[in-house]
Amino acid sequence: MKNLSKYTLPVTIGALGLIAGISPALADDAAKATMTMDAKYVFNTLLFLIGGFLVMWMAAGFAMLEAGLVRSKNVSMQSTKNIALFAIAGLMFWITGYNLMYSGVDGGFFGSFGPMQFPDPAKDTANEYSAYSDWFFQMVFCATTASIVSGTLAERIKIWPFLIFTILLTGFIYPITGSWEWGTGWLDKMGFSDFAGSTLVHSVGGWAALSGAIILGARIGKYGKDGRVNPIPGSNMALATLGTFILWLGWFGFNGASQLAIGTISDAASVAKIFVNTNMAAAAGVIVAITMTQIMYKKIDITMALNGALAGLVSITAEPLMPSVLQSIIIGGIGGVIVVFAVPMLDKFKIDDVVGAIPVHLLAGIWGTIIVPLSNSDASYSVQAIGIVSIGAFVFITSSIIWYLLKVTIGIRPTEEEELLGMDVVEIGVEAYPEFNKS
Amino acid sequence: MKNLSKYTLPVTIGALGLIAGISPALADDAAKATMTMDAKYVFNTLLFLIGGFLVMWMAAGFAMLEAGLVRSKNVSMQSTKNIALFAIAGLMFWITGYNLMYSGVDGGFFGSFGPMQFPDPAKDTANEYSAYSDWFFQMVFCATTASIVSGTLAERIKIWPFLIFTILLTGFIYPITGSWEWGTGWLDKMGFSDFAGSTLVHSVGGWAALSGAIILGARIGKYGKDGRVNPIPGSNMALATLGTFILWLGWFGFNGASQLAIGTISDAASVAKIFVNTNMAAAAGVIVAITMTQIMYKKIDITMALNGALAGLVSITAEPLMPSVLQSIIIGGIGGVIVVFAVPMLDKFKIDDVVGAIPVHLLAGIWGTIIVPLSNSDASYSVQAIGIVSIGAFVFITSSIIWYLLKVTIGIRPTEEEELLGMDVVEIGVEAYPEFNKS
Amino acid sequence: MKNLSKYTLPVTIGALGLIAGISPALADDAAKATMTMDAKYVFNTLLFLIGGFLVMWMAAGFAMLEAGLVRSKNVSMQSTKNIALFAIAGLMFWITGYNLMYSGVDGGFFGSFGPMQFPDPAKDTANEYSAYSDWFFQMVFCATTASIVSGTLAERIKIWPFLIFTILLTGFIYPITGSWEWGTGWLDKMGFSDFAGSTLVHSVGGWAALSGAIILGARIGKYGKDGRVNPIPGSNMALATLGTFILWLGWFGFNGASQLAIGTISDAASVAKIFVNTNMAAAAGVIVAITMTQIMYKKIDITMALNGALAGLVSITAEPLMPSVLQSIIIGGIGGVIVVFAVPMLDKFKIDDVVGAIPVHLLAGIWGTIIVPLSNSDASYSVQAIGIVSIGAFVFITSSIIWYLLKVTIGIRPTEEEELLGMDVVEIGVEAYPEFNKS
Repeated sequence: MKNLSKYTLPVTIGALGLIAGISPALADDAAKATMTMDAKYVFNTLLFLIGGFLVMWMAAGFAMLEAGLVRSKNVSMQSTKNIALFAIAGLMFWITGYNLMYSGVDGGFFGSFGPMQFPDPAKDTANEYSAYSDWFFQMVFCATTASIVSGTLAERIKIWPFLIFTILLTGFIYPITGSWEWGTGWLDKMGFSDFAGSTLVHSVGGWAALSGAIILGARIGKYGKDGRVNPIPGSNMALATLGTFILWLGWFGFNGASQLAIGTISDAASVAKIFVNTNMAAAAGVIVAITMTQIMYKKIDITMALNGALAGLVSITAEPLMPSVLQSIIIGGIGGVIVVFAVPMLDKFKIDDVVGAIPVHLLAGIWGTIIVPLSNSDASYSVQAIGIVSIGAFVFITSSIIWYLLKVTIGIRPTEEEELLGMDVVEIGVEAYPEFNKS
Repeated sequence: MKNLSKYTLPVTIGALGLIAGISPALADDAAKATMTMDAKYVFNTLLFLIGGFLVMWMAAGFAMLEAGLVRSKNVSMQSTKNIALFAIAGLMFWITGYNLMYSGVDGGFFGSFGPMQFPDPAKDTANEYSAYSDWFFQMVFCATTASIVSGTLAERIKIWPFLIFTILLTGFIYPITGSWEWGTGWLDKMGFSDFAGSTLVHSVGGWAALSGAIILGARIGKYGKDGRVNPIPGSNMALATLGTFILWLGWFGFNGASQLAIGTISDAASVAKIFVNTNMAAAAGVIVAITMTQIMYKKIDITMALNGALAGLVSITAEPLMPSVLQSIIIGGIGGVIVVFAVPMLDKFKIDDVVGAIPVHLLAGIWGTIIVPLSNSDASYSVQAIGIVSIGAFVFITSSIIWYLLKVTIGIRPTEEEELLGMDVVEIGVEAYPEFNKS
Repeated sequence: MKNLSKYTLPVTIGALGLIAGISPALADDAAKATMTMDAKYVFNTLLFLIGGFLVMWMAAGFAMLEAGLVRSKNVSMQSTKNIALFAIAGLMFWITGYNLMYSGVDGGFFGSFGPMQFPDPAKDTANEYSAYSDWFFQMVFCATTASIVSGTLAERIKIWPFLIFTILLTGFIYPITGSWEWGTGWLDKMGFSDFAGSTLVHSVGGWAALSGAIILGARIGKYGKDGRVNPIPGSNMALATLGTFILWLGWFGFNGASQLAIGTISDAASVAKIFVNTNMAAAAGVIVAITMTQIMYKKIDITMALNGALAGLVSITAEPLMPSVLQSIIIGGIGGVIVVFAVPMLDKFKIDDVVGAIPVHLLAGIWGTIIVPLSNSDASYSVQAIGIVSIGAFVFITSSIIWYLLKVTIGIRPTEEEELLGMDVVEIGVEAYPEFNKS
């Protein structure tokens, strides 16, 4: 659980001991406690900052993955969306997000409204870590949720409706469902368990993406009138690979720093175990995806290999600490299976998910969440299911309302002519590869 | 201020206590002090190393940003320049830079000559951090300054004069103006304030770039004889976006680790606050740039979005600790405004800045420096202005002399025919994209 | 030396003191020792985790370097190989690698068989660091070895034989030779010295690559029947540069964290010194390579500049701690000389090394290892030579047997027609740049 309140410690013990005029040895005991607190505080803050910058780096990973998986006529657009959504997430998670998610939820459905008020750094001692570092770490998770939506809806959405949706997702939807669990809301009280966000981050992004994909419709030419599915190859597999490596790297921060503390032997060893399990799940996802595509299609599909890694990572995210190495391999490997089967399945429903974000983040996210009780005896399958369904319903319904309202007001889709031209020319005015592109 | 001398602590307290044969409890007190010192030392050294590798990574960010914003016929050249300048900065900041900047300046105009002498690691206890870690952290700032120059002068400078200029910039110009402030020189004594280098790094790079751009002249075809400005699109927006994300990531090290210590609660909380403010300023720069370009040009310009992020980052660099979140947003947002207006303004003066480094690093650097007193009551507007002007004058004049001497001796510009062919063929002999390029 | 056993410490001291009912001051002494142990444990674990994620990131560096140096028709293949080999290394180093390398070697030739058994994180106190963090850090070194092989054999190897070789390399060959030194095997007892793996990682990868290159043969068209060497330009110098910067960054983790501890002033200062020396050697490699290619070919060869950096890094890896800054510059600079001369020399022997991995990793690895006694008086030239030759012989012979068996069974090389088509179309089914590629 990501609720940090349990770490609140009396910082004043040391000072009190000294004031009370007790014997040197005892006063020394008290002083030492303060010092330990100092080191713990610095360690925990460092963990948030290092974990935070690794997760921030995932924004670049999504940008590269998506830039690689869209056609070159939409690469500037996709790049712009990714840098803009990270900016919006930073601002919105301050303006409304953090307090809505963490301030005074206590068993309820959301927190308080209004911007996060930060303490003076010199007095930032309410917890065993800096409030700024906590905010930074939580903010990058919010941004990750928005990144997930970006890929699915690529190549046929106008930029401003996407950015408006991002404002509402990062400022309201994500913080509200986040409050249910990490903000100590009703789901947390019920015993729901989602260590680093298979549901709270990845499925939330996935549901919002699914809702958008349905309301937006498929790209022109993706599904032929004869029922044929036309593959639309991405423009740059090197960048897609780079994006996947960035995400894999960032995930060590995503899962590892979600331990939320590294100031004791036990916490440090737990963070290290999470690194190992996270890596194992990703590795298994890759191996399963390349083996299955070799068997099924007689070739290894690189996009499946990359998405296999990501599905393994999403799968282990709900519980990266408790599983054994072997369990992590199995959990991640099944994530790979899900991706290989779900990508063509979505096409059957004519849901056009440009980068495979729905299989990776929504379906593997559900899988990772439901399987938590396998290794964590504090969790139960029924409560996990309640969490998955309730969060899914909330996000899918609110997202659908927003997408629908955007559609009937400012419009979310460019004209057919514009879509064929590509979003770079139409909305950005700067082609991504002006010297390379054939068309 | 980046002067580290205040951290010098008596390491020997613990040992003395033990030798003196005082009572166990008191000796223990002393021993504990030593231990605290150990932890602080490790924390501070870690901060320099982590901050240092993040800033080192910015060299890759500049390389990708510039590779993306030049035409494909100059991408190998730009890549070579960026890896070579990072190598030169490393060597020169050891041979002359560090001592010129930090050794015995004390109110003066430069330090001593000669290579930095490192202590034996086992005896590296003069300060509360490792001397090696300090050198490494300061070196990557020096390299950043050189990276800034590289982008402005792209596509029409010969490589060897550029590298010779880089030797002089990293070995002499940057360390001298650096000594005035971070080396405790005359500007520091006067009360000038530049936390992480809006002026000392970014404007210094910007002035050197401006001087070079004027003496070198514009690229062939950039400014038509009828006064028209011909846009010359960059070859790869995905790489330019990647470069910007790398720089954004690296900036957490740039500003955060410029706190120079993380061994106490107060320092750790300050580093964390700097992370938040740095991110907010960048986010505001993006949002302002995309909103303004949408309004002004009816399209979002991705190059402005990227430069908006960078301008926000440069703007907050002079004082990332004292501003509130809201102040950081305003400071960074105005950085975005500056970029959107200054890029076309430079074209009016026929100053051809290929990547927009002068608006981003010089102008936003000046803005960030002059606004420090808004949040930091120890700073004054007049002293900030004195620092900006004196450093600007010194760098612009010395750079101009060097560029001029290089021009009249070995020459800085290829022939017209060579420039049209592209620097990759002419000076590197390896095309960047031999299979993609139309021309 | 990378053997960690020396760090085993009694964790129970504090607890015992308290149980024994001794005086408060003494019990406090004991408690303090435990606390110090806590901080050391966290610091060391952090070092492994940060160093580990930096070295993990090198896998992306190799992927980008290789994607940039092959033709576009083989970029998807090269990307797939790199993500798959990292996955395999993670699994195999758990299934057999770690125990073979580290468990009960004690002067012998290999350790025990079977998967690594991890302790419960709450009881992970056998050493002054987490066992998980140690495994993670050692695993990424194993993966690096496999990455080296990938580049040399590019553009004309089938993927499955490559992956089978990778399984054997990461699960058996690398761990066995690794056990001789870092696992406290016979070479360690003899006094061989290889701080971070010039021989154990880089030359091992290089020998495996050399053996494969000989048995596989050159790419079609590389060596003309008239004895002419036909250069085959890489497709993307920007990505090759990015890959080099990633590797340079990752190397700070590779060498720095190989100090294996950062919980004391002396260790922290040593890690910092390693950062500086590592950077200096890379910088010297770049400068030597660009200067030499300018003199020899009248142009700076960017691929030499990049490989010069890498050769400098490999050269300093056997002993990054003991050399002075000047010695590091010389050691790295000679690495640059080796690359510039060895790349054309390999072509004389018609050994087709697509990315220059044999000069960079094998030859500079030998150079770095043999020169250790220059700065480390505990090492001797003769023992260094014994280590280089014995490890080289073992790896070259076992690799050759495996490559030969793969060749005569499932075959390692595609048909001529397939090779000309490119591996992307033939084995991956996804072109890397479907919109850019001329052919």
